[in-house]
Amino acid sequence: MNTEVSMSIDIEGLNAWWRAANYLSVGQIYLRDNALLTRPLASEDVKERLLGHWGTTPGLNFVYAHLNRVISQRQQEMLFVTGPGHGGPANVANAWLEGTYSEIYGNIGSDASGMNALFKQFSYPGGIPSHAAPETPGSIHEGGELGYSLAHAYGAVFDNPTLIAATVVGDGEAETGPLATSWLSSSFVDPAVDGAVLPILHLNGYKIANPTVLARMPEDQLRQLMYGYGYDPRFVTVTDPADTAAAHQDFADVLDGCIDDIHAIQDRARTSPAQAGDPAPRWPMIVLRSPKGWTGPAEVDGKPVEGTWRSHQVPLSEIHTDEQHLHQLEEWMRSYDPGTLFTENGELRPEIAALAPEGSLRMSATPYANGGWLLKDLVLPSYTEHAVAVSAPGTEKVSPMITVGGYLRDVIDLNPHTFRLFGPDETASNRLSAVYEVTDKAWQPRIEDVDEHLARSGRVMEVLSEHLCQGWLEGYLLTGRHGVFNCYEAFVHIVDSMFNQFAKWLKVHRVLSWRRPIASFNYMLSSHVWQQDHNGFSHQDPGFMDHVVNKTADITRVYLPPDANTMLAVTEHCMQTRDTVNVIVTGKQPTPTWFGPEEAQLHVRRGIGILDFAGTEEPGVEPDVVLGCAGDVPTLEAVAAARLLSAGVPGLKIRVVNVVDLMRLQDETEHPHGLSSRDFDTLFTTSKPVIFAFHGYPALIHRLTYRRNNHANLHVRGYKEEGTTTTPFDMAMLNQIDRFQLAMDVIDRVPTLGASQGRLRQDLQDQRERAWQYTRDAGKDLEAITGWTLDESSPDDAQ
Amino acid sequence: MNTEVSMSIDIEGLNAWWRAANYLSVGQIYLRDNALLTRPLASEDVKERLLGHWGTTPGLNFVYAHLNRVISQRQQEMLFVTGPGHGGPANVANAWLEGTYSEIYGNIGSDASGMNALFKQFSYPGGIPSHAAPETPGSIHEGGELGYSLAHAYGAVFDNPTLIAATVVGDGEAETGPLATSWLSSSFVDPAVDGAVLPILHLNGYKIANPTVLARMPEDQLRQLMYGYGYDPRFVTVTDPADTAAAHQDFADVLDGCIDDIHAIQDRARTSPAQAGDPAPRWPMIVLRSPKGWTGPAEVDGKPVEGTWRSHQVPLSEIHTDEQHLHQLEEWMRSYDPGTLFTENGELRPEIAALAPEGSLRMSATPYANGGWLLKDLVLPSYTEHAVAVSAPGTEKVSPMITVGGYLRDVIDLNPHTFRLFGPDETASNRLSAVYEVTDKAWQPRIEDVDEHLARSGRVMEVLSEHLCQGWLEGYLLTGRHGVFNCYEAFVHIVDSMFNQFAKWLKVHRVLSWRRPIASFNYMLSSHVWQQDHNGFSHQDPGFMDHVVNKTADITRVYLPPDANTMLAVTEHCMQTRDTVNVIVTGKQPTPTWFGPEEAQLHVRRGIGILDFAGTEEPGVEPDVVLGCAGDVPTLEAVAAARLLSAGVPGLKIRVVNVVDLMRLQDETEHPHGLSSRDFDTLFTTSKPVIFAFHGYPALIHRLTYRRNNHANLHVRGYKEEGTTTTPFDMAMLNQIDRFQLAMDVIDRVPTLGASQGRLRQDLQDQRERAWQYTRDAGKDLEAITGWTLDESSPDDAQ
Repeated sequence: MNTEVSMSIDIEGLNAWWRAANYLSVGQIYLRDNALLTRPLASEDVKERLLGHWGTTPGLNFVYAHLNRVISQRQQEMLFVTGPGHGGPANVANAWLEGTYSEIYGNIGSDASGMNALFKQFSYPGGIPSHAAPETPGSIHEGGELGYSLAHAYGAVFDNPTLIAATVVGDGEAETGPLATSWLSSSFVDPAVDGAVLPILHLNGYKIANPTVLARMPEDQLRQLMYGYGYDPRFVTVTDPADTAAAHQDFADVLDGCIDDIHAIQDRARTSPAQAGDPAPRWPMIVLRSPKGWTGPAEVDGKPVEGTWRSHQVPLSEIHTDEQHLHQLEEWMRSYDPGTLFTENGELRPEIAALAPEGSLRMSATPYANGGWLLKDLVLPSYTEHAVAVSAPGTEKVSPMITVGGYLRDVIDLNPHTFRLFGPDETASNRLSAVYEVTDKAWQPRIEDVDEHLARSGRVMEVLSEHLCQGWLEGYLLTGRHGVFNCYEAFVHIVDSMFNQFAKWLKVHRVLSWRRPIASFNYMLSSHVWQQDHNGFSHQDPGFMDHVVNKTADITRVYLPPDANTMLAVTEHCMQTRDTVNVIVTGKQPTPTWFGPEEAQLHVRRGIGILDFAGTEEPGVEPDVVLGCAGDVPTLEAVAAARLLSAGVPGLKIRVVNVVDLMRLQDETEHPHGLSSRDFDTLFTTSKPVIFAFHGYPALIHRLTYRRNNHANLHVRGYKEEGTTTTPFDMAMLNQIDRFQLAMDVIDRVPTLGASQGRLRQDLQDQRERAWQYTRDAGKDLEAITGWTLDESSPDDAQ
Repeated sequence: MNTEVSMSIDIEGLNAWWRAANYLSVGQIYLRDNALLTRPLASEDVKERLLGHWGTTPGLNFVYAHLNRVISQRQQEMLFVTGPGHGGPANVANAWLEGTYSEIYGNIGSDASGMNALFKQFSYPGGIPSHAAPETPGSIHEGGELGYSLAHAYGAVFDNPTLIAATVVGDGEAETGPLATSWLSSSFVDPAVDGAVLPILHLNGYKIANPTVLARMPEDQLRQLMYGYGYDPRFVTVTDPADTAAAHQDFADVLDGCIDDIHAIQDRARTSPAQAGDPAPRWPMIVLRSPKGWTGPAEVDGKPVEGTWRSHQVPLSEIHTDEQHLHQLEEWMRSYDPGTLFTENGELRPEIAALAPEGSLRMSATPYANGGWLLKDLVLPSYTEHAVAVSAPGTEKVSPMITVGGYLRDVIDLNPHTFRLFGPDETASNRLSAVYEVTDKAWQPRIEDVDEHLARSGRVMEVLSEHLCQGWLEGYLLTGRHGVFNCYEAFVHIVDSMFNQFAKWLKVHRVLSWRRPIASFNYMLSSHVWQQDHNGFSHQDPGFMDHVVNKTADITRVYLPPDANTMLAVTEHCMQTRDTVNVIVTGKQPTPTWFGPEEAQLHVRRGIGILDFAGTEEPGVEPDVVLGCAGDVPTLEAVAAARLLSAGVPGLKIRVVNVVDLMRLQDETEHPHGLSSRDFDTLFTTSKPVIFAFHGYPALIHRLTYRRNNHANLHVRGYKEEGTTTTPFDMAMLNQIDRFQLAMDVIDRVPTLGASQGRLRQDLQDQRERAWQYTRDAGKDLEAITGWTLDESSPDDAQ
């Protein structure tokens, strides 16, 4: 390796690149014409509305220039992650300097007119955002919402042993919770098989309108904080903004030391594996304290700007009304001496262009930032081998999560470098423990004798932070790998906002032809709302589905497999999809298996279908009532309700429809999985009552179906925030999705029952009352909901 | 003050209390009868299903006993915050020992039968959850979801100068993002006017199934981490679990030191105020390393349990099938020597009971944990003085947020100790800067000359963490004060899950008669989806409303004031509500003011109403079409559409209905603010087309109205995830809620237009095309959407 090699440092070259990037950054924020300043700057050359953030940008450009030197000298693979929110001009400027921008975007050439176009499009209607985004070459990180840079970076380096993710962390985002805990990621990165993250904490001193906590810490305190987080911090402090040569020399020296030390840690781990008692490696990181708005106007209107919060956005804002501001802008841009940077045609001068790394080593062109280039299909285990044999529908009680756990075990086994399982300390609780037959949980700190399933290079990533699980997996997927995030259903809301950003990323990513499809993000949500007996009310929330369906239909999928085999089939399907977010919700308790292996695959492929075994309809005759269901518990209750009704009302023609792919309920014009109106009407009729038992909040079903012909006859039961510490079956009763209630709902809506209606209803009411007493009583409450299978439909028979 | 007083330490008394609390904790987890072990323990005495978490509980009981000593000896006001998720048995046990439990819950007496009832209800159908919850006396903290303990504690001590919030932080939750950044809260607590938080990091070593990162850190590293977070850590390490006397002595000494040092910091700040250059005070904190499941079974079935992850939940799980387990349980419970703790009647022996603090000093009875007892109404400024005079509807363009900023300034001025404004570095960006005329941002680190509006004791709490803003305000409200959380609309999703937990807390809190009403949680969301020109796609998400309405109708309110005066009236109203969550969404840009001061109040009181000035209907005649609107931008567009139509289609009877209180759309049976069917039909007709322009995702309007008679004729326009970096008016067009589109929607649905329909539509289409070109052009784009007021309805006239 290249460790401990003395590297020459071309200060002048570094500074030229930096000046060029800064020039292009200022240009993006201000100009719509006269990019090269070939004539005196005029008000018309400047955008009408000035939007963008100068403050953080020169620091980013500074770091980028230095990383380029390291990449070129060492042929080091690097990924650049821009944490500071509005550092977009820096990424774009450097991508243009490296030639990548023009290679990707034909309308932005590498000459003067290209530069004009580059400037004009920034923060402009129809143009590009002011932060790093999918449109930004070399980025896997949306800079709009803060706090996820380090988590993305760590996700990117897992299983990429030669990669270093240089990650600039803004001191603003450092105050967010997700970032604050992301530092702990170093306890999960294995120097033997993973790459490295080099965090560069960039202390500009200010966020939008306030100083930052980390920047105002005494240096000794900040040093201890970083040491405490597990790093070996090195400080580069720019004390004299004008002495750029000293700043370059300092940073270059420190950077070389970091790269050397990273390689030393990796070499050590790769030649002599860590012992159980060893502590986690202490990785280098850099604290760069540089003035906010460095090289920008020192003062504006007599007030200090460089080095203060006043340079956060646009330091000179009155260009169109204040001659002095216009003049000062021109002076500022000319201070970079553009004539020495660009040719008369606006091309980067060849001696500066030569400083860029070559080809895919350019951080703006690295395939790691366009993971689809690196993506390989997963080798999938045999579905058939994992599927549960079914003697008759509902006979075998099997946990869907345990079943899929065995499948995931084999996925891990078959794909030892390209698949990981993520979870917030809930993988065992969610019943996926089979994976520990072939792998362990990744853990770099000391390992003790009492520990089980911990190893330096485990494929299961467990940390008590949903934010980290989400961020790591996003980074892992965006760099071309596969994964699953298993989580308690209620607490996945912790990452609602991260999901939003990722969904928005995917939507844009999909329409950029140069970005290659990536593996889908798979949520596997269990320990769900209906199985929270001892955890109670705080653990009950099925609303993540509602949240997800607000996002673009092209990328959102929601599956509610009702049993083990459908769960397996859904998982097999999701593992092969690209560029979507798949939300899978199912239970971990044993539940009746309704579908045989082949039926399950067929049902999942259809996404919706009639449960023939449960209904009582006659061929060719429209049923009297439809019982719809989606989710494992609702399906059990609907099937049981149908059974109660068939016993109580002979001749009643009941159809039971199960929905496994929730998006089938939407119209085909609204979602790619949507059913045509005709197919929907065929299943649900256009005039018969539909009683629908739903896993989540009832409103979601109405929302998905309000355009349907038979919507007026649709009556949905679901979770309505009732129940706390109680048994699963009591939960069903409190929220009125239990079999008795569903059967009563049918009776209330079928007009043909005549005189027997009252008696039937009373009978069901009585049964319900008995069941309530039973489940509230001491024993066997856990089994109640699964015990009442088809053959045990009265509480007295329950196991 | 009580500083530096030497305090006697009654080790035996401490240990007796601890044993009693431990006994009651084990009893809760296991027993349903035979609480006092008056007969040999039998299988029937033990609950059928064993649920609960022993691991963290003895440590919590240990800390609680010690805090009681300090409270009694110093008459120190204390609040106990239980971070570890499933520490519920500890809180309940101590509340029962202090007598509070029986005072509050008449069915749980302070004798043997009460103890039996106490045991049985725990984690039992119809009983209490296994973590601290609203039902738990003395708690302001839901233990179900992890990570918010420190934020709640800091919120509780703001403006409570004599209070110490002793906060046990679990080492599991310490891995969460929100907790990781909560440590930084000490940079915002003012020792002169606030109380103090005493964090007790409780290192049990394990979460559910894994060791914790903090527990496996070398001690030197953990010390540096805590120092880095700004604290002065003191370590208490229980090396010999059997030597409880040493453990008590160590902890008592350290605790006394902490209390002394807290008082010293406060005394110093209260006698000689900090200077600008001073660093933030360094507060004491404790790291308590004690065995998980301390005093529980050392081994079970030959495997180590005490001190390992095996004691996380129920260390003896086979009670009903394994005689040895049953025997070991009895032995374990008898090891606490219950005969020395309780009388034969099951009452706590008086000498132990005497160790509890008295009356409201008991942490289980402190009014701080039942904030409604302390709540005082806000003194509110004059609405009329802040309201904007309106010469004619839509003439005055005013920013709703700037207007309410002046109002909030006066609220702060009039309520100097009971109201705070929280925000993630966005208060100025959201245009509330008027508050800085009377106060500053609280900031304890060094203050520099260039800083503006920073002070040790500011009333504005700004930190770049939505989690901290939410957690602090929750803590502030739950202890009886008032506040507002202002936030960018898109990023409030960061706290979706915290909102869930708080909403669930409120729902339970409302039905507990002993819990007094608290001030409502007020969200003020701005910089919203329609005003994200330079921030683009990542900043566009109006879905928080959707999320909120999933929670119980009793507590959720959503307001979309369309102008400055309605914003003011909504705010005035929300400030006076109790026990609800009020979500207010409005813009920060100048927007036409439609309502005069009195009209605005009336409109807000009604929540929904007809905009007479905008419509063209005739008295007593049903209109041809209804244009609905909710939100500032949609209202402007709907009014403008009505104007376009009235010009283009003379005689068309248009009604414009504005919704400011979104819950009015629901039926009165579904939400307390819901409109009756009759009133709804009166406004929206039962048969005429309704075109509805909505601020958020269109599905929400359908969801709220799907039961309404005229729902089939309702056509909603809203945000559909289109548009990125562009102008506000372009956003409206891309998502098709612009005036031209709305007018075309009307034309498409009014059947009476006859032959002129095609021409009218084409004309609107042409206008729309011109507008598009205009807004995509360089200049004046910002003003476009507000510039096209009633008198400037063509783009050529735009400002």
